[in-house]
Amino acid sequence: MFLARVEGTVVATKKDPQMQGRKLLLLRPQLVDEKDPTKFRPGVNTIVAVDSVGAGVGELVMFTQGSSARLAPGMRDAPVDAVVIGIVDTVDVLGRIIYQAHSARG
Amino acid sequence: MFLARVEGTVVATKKDPQMQGRKLLLLRPQLVDEKDPTKFRPGVNTIVAVDSVGAGVGELVMFTQGSSARLAPGMRDAPVDAVVIGIVDTVDVLGRIIYQAHSARG
Amino acid sequence: MFLARVEGTVVATKKDPQMQGRKLLLLRPQLVDEKDPTKFRPGVNTIVAVDSVGAGVGELVMFTQGSSARLAPGMRDAPVDAVVIGIVDTVDVLGRIIYQAHSARG
Amino acid sequence: MFLARVEGTVVATKKDPQMQGRKLLLLRPQLVDEKDPTKFRPGVNTIVAVDSVGAGVGELVMFTQGSSARLAPGMRDAPVDAVVIGIVDTVDVLGRIIYQAHSARG
Amino acid sequence: MFLARVEGTVVATKKDPQMQGRKLLLLRPQLVDEKDPTKFRPGVNTIVAVDSVGAGVGELVMFTQGSSARLAPGMRDAPVDAVVIGIVDTVDVLGRIIYQAHSARG
Repeated sequence: MFLARVEGTVVATKKDPQMQGRKLLLLRPQLVDEKDPTKFRPGVNTIVAVDSVGAGVGELVMFTQGSSARLAPGMRDAPVDAVVIGIVDTVDVLGRIIYQAHSARG
Repeated sequence: MFLARVEGTVVATKKDPQMQGRKLLLLRPQLVDEKDPTKFRPGVNTIVAVDSVGAGVGELVMFTQGSSARLAPGMRDAPVDAVVIGIVDTVDVLGRIIYQAHSARG
Repeated sequence: MFLARVEGTVVATKKDPQMQGRKLLLLRPQLVDEKDPTKFRPGVNTIVAVDSVGAGVGELVMFTQGSSARLAPGMRDAPVDAVVIGIVDTVDVLGRIIYQAHSARG
Repeated sequence: MFLARVEGTVVATKKDPQMQGRKLLLLRPQLVDEKDPTKFRPGVNTIVAVDSVGAGVGELVMFTQGSSARLAPGMRDAPVDAVVIGIVDTVDVLGRIIYQAHSARG
Repeated sequence: MFLARVEGTVVATKKDPQMQGRKLLLLRPQLVDEKDPTKFRPGVNTIVAVDSVGAGVGELVMFTQGSSARLAPGMRDAPVDAVVIGIVDTVDVLGRIIYQAHSARG
């Protein structure tokens, strides 16, 4: 899985019937910076994922890709290759908390 | 999933029997620019995807890759790893609409 | 799927029993150049794919990757993650034919 | 599979029910340096994987991605695309041991 | 599939039960150089794959990734996403043999 920031939403009316009623989130992966492990480095690609946990813009989430994404509730028969499966509380790198959900919203 | 612009079409007469009658679209992924989130940055790769929603050249679409692509209608037994599953109406990034289908065609 | 040029062949006598008798083609992906959409840019990686449509060296083909590759005829039980599923006739980008099989051989 | 160093942990309370009780590790892939095969080069991306072998921060592990990750014990129905499946003892490159677990902890 | 050179081996005692007794090879992908198609260019990443054909260090092999890797003999229930499925004899690029197993060992 990858960590990502929810940066926005996508709306598509004309779509696969199995996609009806699913909230589409625009994600930007967040990688722990290889030069400074106390912070994230934003990924260069943005991905569209189906929300399955009620995530909102600005939150740090965890998403799954590929066929495993269809193991999220109600996705088994949907042509979906990316699903948000968790909203992150904390990220600890080498014994140091580099992300804490509440302080991120402070 | 990824967002992409339909840039063209591919025709292949000699192909897998399961591919007969399927429209093949040439897609260029569109990523939200990491330096300027008010616009897209075109991807460097182009991908061939089967159309499943009647998308046309110039439209912004959403496509699925891998085995999940075979969950689109009629694709279950086809050797297909990329399918267009939606035509995008709007993309909202950090509270700002950066793409609106109608205005894109204006 | 991706477009690719068949650049060569691979022979491996000592191989998985399911791979016996399958022609192995060496492919170089071809991407529509993001700076000049009237031509292709060769990819930097080369891939080995099983031929399923009688493709030859020099031809522009379309190949499928991942588990979907096993949906090509006779591949269901083979440890194969890339199969050529079509020989390309034409590629049209933004209303302009940038590849035509016959002229490519002229 | 890839080799990776466990760099940290991720906690997410609001998550897919199938993810309850699973330890989430933050991994940094380790690639054998192509210019100096006596050492590793850290990857630029960090990945979140479920632990299935009791790995701890600082250890060199092996992880599996994609649908194969769900073949680890108890993962079959979880929306998981990366699982740690081994803790590495030694890595030998071109006849030379470039990693030995005990000495790494010395 | 990809071509790769076997560069070494990995040993992990504490691992998934399904991985017991499997030889783990460290592979460096070999890509035909896009600037000089008479030779290979080594990939920058190294991958761990299960051996299924008795490959040794120094040999040029072909490996499969993803769920297809589990179609190799005895791998169906293993959390494996990369398996060596062939030992390469020859590679012909644009009508010229750029690799021949015996001469490689001469």
